[in-house]
Amino acid sequence: MSQRTTSIHAAILGGTGYGGGELLRLLTQHSQVSVTSVTSTSQVGRGIAEVHPHLRGFYDLSMTEAVDFDRLLDAERSVVFCALPHGHSGAAADTVLREIERRGTTARATVIDLSGDLRLRNAGLHRQHYPDAPELTDRRAMAVYGLPELQRESIRAARLIANPGCLASAAILALAPLADELAGPVAIDAKTGSSGSGRELKATTHHPTRHADFRAYKPLAHQHEPEILQALGDPNGERIAASFVAQSMDCARGIYVTAHAALAADIAPLDLLERYKRFYASSPFVRMCAEPPTLQDVVGSNFCDIALACRDRRIVVMAALDNLIKGMAGTAIQNMNLACGLPEETGLWTPSFRPV
Amino acid sequence: MSQRTTSIHAAILGGTGYGGGELLRLLTQHSQVSVTSVTSTSQVGRGIAEVHPHLRGFYDLSMTEAVDFDRLLDAERSVVFCALPHGHSGAAADTVLREIERRGTTARATVIDLSGDLRLRNAGLHRQHYPDAPELTDRRAMAVYGLPELQRESIRAARLIANPGCLASAAILALAPLADELAGPVAIDAKTGSSGSGRELKATTHHPTRHADFRAYKPLAHQHEPEILQALGDPNGERIAASFVAQSMDCARGIYVTAHAALAADIAPLDLLERYKRFYASSPFVRMCAEPPTLQDVVGSNFCDIALACRDRRIVVMAALDNLIKGMAGTAIQNMNLACGLPEETGLWTPSFRPV
Amino acid sequence: MSQRTTSIHAAILGGTGYGGGELLRLLTQHSQVSVTSVTSTSQVGRGIAEVHPHLRGFYDLSMTEAVDFDRLLDAERSVVFCALPHGHSGAAADTVLREIERRGTTARATVIDLSGDLRLRNAGLHRQHYPDAPELTDRRAMAVYGLPELQRESIRAARLIANPGCLASAAILALAPLADELAGPVAIDAKTGSSGSGRELKATTHHPTRHADFRAYKPLAHQHEPEILQALGDPNGERIAASFVAQSMDCARGIYVTAHAALAADIAPLDLLERYKRFYASSPFVRMCAEPPTLQDVVGSNFCDIALACRDRRIVVMAALDNLIKGMAGTAIQNMNLACGLPEETGLWTPSFRPV
Amino acid sequence: MSQRTTSIHAAILGGTGYGGGELLRLLTQHSQVSVTSVTSTSQVGRGIAEVHPHLRGFYDLSMTEAVDFDRLLDAERSVVFCALPHGHSGAAADTVLREIERRGTTARATVIDLSGDLRLRNAGLHRQHYPDAPELTDRRAMAVYGLPELQRESIRAARLIANPGCLASAAILALAPLADELAGPVAIDAKTGSSGSGRELKATTHHPTRHADFRAYKPLAHQHEPEILQALGDPNGERIAASFVAQSMDCARGIYVTAHAALAADIAPLDLLERYKRFYASSPFVRMCAEPPTLQDVVGSNFCDIALACRDRRIVVMAALDNLIKGMAGTAIQNMNLACGLPEETGLWTPSFRPV
Repeated sequence: MSQRTTSIHAAILGGTGYGGGELLRLLTQHSQVSVTSVTSTSQVGRGIAEVHPHLRGFYDLSMTEAVDFDRLLDAERSVVFCALPHGHSGAAADTVLREIERRGTTARATVIDLSGDLRLRNAGLHRQHYPDAPELTDRRAMAVYGLPELQRESIRAARLIANPGCLASAAILALAPLADELAGPVAIDAKTGSSGSGRELKATTHHPTRHADFRAYKPLAHQHEPEILQALGDPNGERIAASFVAQSMDCARGIYVTAHAALAADIAPLDLLERYKRFYASSPFVRMCAEPPTLQDVVGSNFCDIALACRDRRIVVMAALDNLIKGMAGTAIQNMNLACGLPEETGLWTPSFRPV
Repeated sequence: MSQRTTSIHAAILGGTGYGGGELLRLLTQHSQVSVTSVTSTSQVGRGIAEVHPHLRGFYDLSMTEAVDFDRLLDAERSVVFCALPHGHSGAAADTVLREIERRGTTARATVIDLSGDLRLRNAGLHRQHYPDAPELTDRRAMAVYGLPELQRESIRAARLIANPGCLASAAILALAPLADELAGPVAIDAKTGSSGSGRELKATTHHPTRHADFRAYKPLAHQHEPEILQALGDPNGERIAASFVAQSMDCARGIYVTAHAALAADIAPLDLLERYKRFYASSPFVRMCAEPPTLQDVVGSNFCDIALACRDRRIVVMAALDNLIKGMAGTAIQNMNLACGLPEETGLWTPSFRPV
Repeated sequence: MSQRTTSIHAAILGGTGYGGGELLRLLTQHSQVSVTSVTSTSQVGRGIAEVHPHLRGFYDLSMTEAVDFDRLLDAERSVVFCALPHGHSGAAADTVLREIERRGTTARATVIDLSGDLRLRNAGLHRQHYPDAPELTDRRAMAVYGLPELQRESIRAARLIANPGCLASAAILALAPLADELAGPVAIDAKTGSSGSGRELKATTHHPTRHADFRAYKPLAHQHEPEILQALGDPNGERIAASFVAQSMDCARGIYVTAHAALAADIAPLDLLERYKRFYASSPFVRMCAEPPTLQDVVGSNFCDIALACRDRRIVVMAALDNLIKGMAGTAIQNMNLACGLPEETGLWTPSFRPV
Repeated sequence: MSQRTTSIHAAILGGTGYGGGELLRLLTQHSQVSVTSVTSTSQVGRGIAEVHPHLRGFYDLSMTEAVDFDRLLDAERSVVFCALPHGHSGAAADTVLREIERRGTTARATVIDLSGDLRLRNAGLHRQHYPDAPELTDRRAMAVYGLPELQRESIRAARLIANPGCLASAAILALAPLADELAGPVAIDAKTGSSGSGRELKATTHHPTRHADFRAYKPLAHQHEPEILQALGDPNGERIAASFVAQSMDCARGIYVTAHAALAADIAPLDLLERYKRFYASSPFVRMCAEPPTLQDVVGSNFCDIALACRDRRIVVMAALDNLIKGMAGTAIQNMNLACGLPEETGLWTPSFRPV
């Protein structure tokens, strides 16, 4: 409909799932990007709108088996999003990077992996939490952890970005400004909507089972716990004794993290709030709130809303975001913007979808 | 965040409800419009983001008691949206029009009333269905019924537009291409999300009452029935014996209309589909679907998805749309675009919010 | 926990799905019944509470491959519920009946089939709508259609009962008192919760797809349409020109049918209501309501709530029920009560689960 | 419908809200109880089924302004449930008790207050958290805290019972077996359905606001925190440094508490589970689960399901219950059963309502 002068070519590996679908949905609003390839194993040859009916009218492309690298790289800047399942995505990112290196176009291309395959630096934790993923030691070492609010400068220069986990994103944004002030264990109580479990049918996302339900899963055993600790500078959990529980809500989108912690020293509530505001002063997508955040104020947007409650030295930090946007595809596009030298919020500056 | 060269100034009367909030939300994505006044009776002096927390970061404006006409009219084009409750909105539109006339700026200004106050031409039906609204006979006579898919040319020239009802919009779009082919009664079974009942607290939108519920209301007595018949060219229901039932779903957004009808003559299913496609050939927001439409494919967008099912001469038409967008604020902006000479889809070309 | 003197032994074929689970749940409240066998193909050897965790504490039984007929028939009365998938359940009912006949215990045993396999008398319609089911012509001929409100006396004497379809139950109860007064086509607009699609994972009951959604399916092609017409005495649809559409709601339980019809002659609204009340005078589970029914007033109970709206000769009948109870397992138990000479409401006299 | 030989007469003060409605709903399944009076301020003279349409067919009673004490006390045992709002209910309990004392029938009568007015022993905390409630120092001193799993014997002999808070019930049942083993702070992350906010319309239970939302409220300031600490034997929170956060889910019923704690000494996971099983060995409504509990396995029932997860000395306890049943009216009836010498589970032995 609109005429765009695009400077970025993007390819999406794994375009049939919710990650790929959400990238495609969000990129319809990004004036600088042309999607040149969308790959799929099961849907090769089908149009994007056949696989994602809500995108009828927005793309003429069909799913292909492989990326068209000639077309992808025929642009000022090129970005490849790997949105394949855990265990496959990191290896695909590696293959793409090698092709880019072979063609000598590394300076103008960035690979963003949305899976967990490249997130953990520690080899033992990587093996424990992603047993089906290859080691890819060098790639894990070179990958920049793609949380723009913490790694903005590294992301600008990155050739390979490990996009953060959805629950981890909320927990890290909630706790990062406090990371050096904590005393004693931190309870991270995380809740997520059903789209976080993916488009594949599962017993836990069967509608009659999930409707009006709430349940915990993987208590004290979730793969996002080491990711959070690594981002907070305590990869082995020696300092921050985290107690992480993931829980399923009856909604499709949204993450709500409630972190219960204690401070090592007295800090006045207003000073704490000030510290958060300073920490996120150049982060347009983090909003500090006077009241506890709500899903409705973030779902549909790339915002993460955060609020604090204190009593004596106890502190509760609440953070809310949309798992498919700020928890996945939105942050991936934010990373793309940074890597391509665009303003961070390009194509993402949209309010949440209230009432939802 | 973004720098805009705006050519349209817009005022919103009644900015605290869902209609006003949705206009404000959608207009953040419209590059040609500056909102210059937002009025309220209860929230005068409060910032837009205080009243609509999801809009934090998007508006610097505060709610005022009255429109700043000097500022409003200091633009190439001016638009006033009246989003007050039924019974008040039409009168406000009248007052605004008189001020515009007094200033001699009618050629550049359009008033769009989102209420039902100015929709019905027939005085008796108007009184019966809007007993609290003033007569405003002249204004009802001059108002163009603002369904762009049916009245595109009149809207381009309109000074006063009566924006359609949400359930009526879906029903009319479902039936308009067939209006001359129907035989016998038409059952219009309409379902709506809770945001259609407004932001004011009501027993029927109390969460514990509405959750996991479904119920009919005003069966055979809803004010959108005469609006539908009027738009289909049968204001007194002499030809189309409509049986209209409105029903409440457990979701916040979305309208689904299932119209059951019979054809006066044999028409092959493919010919019917062809007729619909031709009818909506220049309507970018109506999409004909091979499968029954779904709320998820329209909610969050300005699309109305329509599908047909036939057996012998019986026909079922299904139409889905977002009640706050295509059923209200989206169509209002579409009307504004037409009245201001912009492409119809400006600021509205967004896919639906799937999964929601 | 409670001491019961049971006079009925019951077996359930297909105890793992929602039909079997709901029978087991409801029978915990029935003081006259002992469940002696629950069969399964996939869960043989597992305890009932392992397969249905909400039944922990209520059953000591394990799933078996086959019915223990010795135990089943060692009682005053025996009942077998066939709750297998369409295409398998009718044949299983046939096998059970033959075993019962072989043992010469037909006088004391009743078989109740919850599937659609034995519902349609007309061979052509049966083949069209249940292409995977065997013919079983004799069994279909001998089966009593198990809607107690219409067939109470036949059910008392039945050896084989075809339990009604869930959507069909609501539609038939809505229209039966009017069957002889209708003029012209009847639009039956039916809505159902997700549990009606069963416990097996399906794309249409994937939570992120179903949440906040609404969609029609099989418009004008649903297998419950001929079942409704047969029950209303017009198996070939010559008199009642039905237009039946099934639709999916975002709730787990509940059916809402809105039937739009026209009367052949003038009948005063109060006379119509009176006719319904008379028709259902001896039916404790049908309640005529002054206001449109709601799901919350029936879900969790065996009630079907019905209301009428009239204007001139147009009439709208609204009926609500719980698809797993009055639409399936509750009616099956009601049929069992009748066949066993118990008061119809034994074990079923429970209010709905409001707020749900 | 059924003929009962009742030995208990019950009166309900405040029969229009969710507490009163749920008592009435549950008591339809209790064979020993006759409800003799249901009071209301706003609905005097209206039938119970007019105020609670789901109870049509179950009660002939109308709401009255005052309790009919003659009828109430004309039974072997009498029970009065005070289900008025906080701030009014305790005073009403006091008035009822005085009337019972005046009539010299204290030995056969028990008063059960469902509000928070009589729960806190500590005067300062009482005043802080229930500023609108009268002191009622003597009544607060005499009231037995009605959590049967902890106070079974006292309840049997009680004349006045303070029924526990809903969130508090889940938290206390989760932590009581561990109360003496805890080291360091305990994070109690509590989630509740909307019916916990009552039948009165509120902005936080407006459907478009609550649907698909999740939000925290009163973090570190909720009145159930001191109630939990008192029940765990640490009324001033000196030992257990609780961090309590209440949160709103998009469902009508259900409470889920996730408690994050640390153990003072090593205890093997199986020993911990064993300890819980022993602790609740005579509590039929507490079920220890191998997997994290789910709302669907408790909603509609009087069960509280509990599961544990451990890693080193960190422990997470998850507890789920139905806020209107085990969190309110079900426990109240359980208390009535105990006070009247009946088996604890009388009228309450029902599985949960899965799928809900």
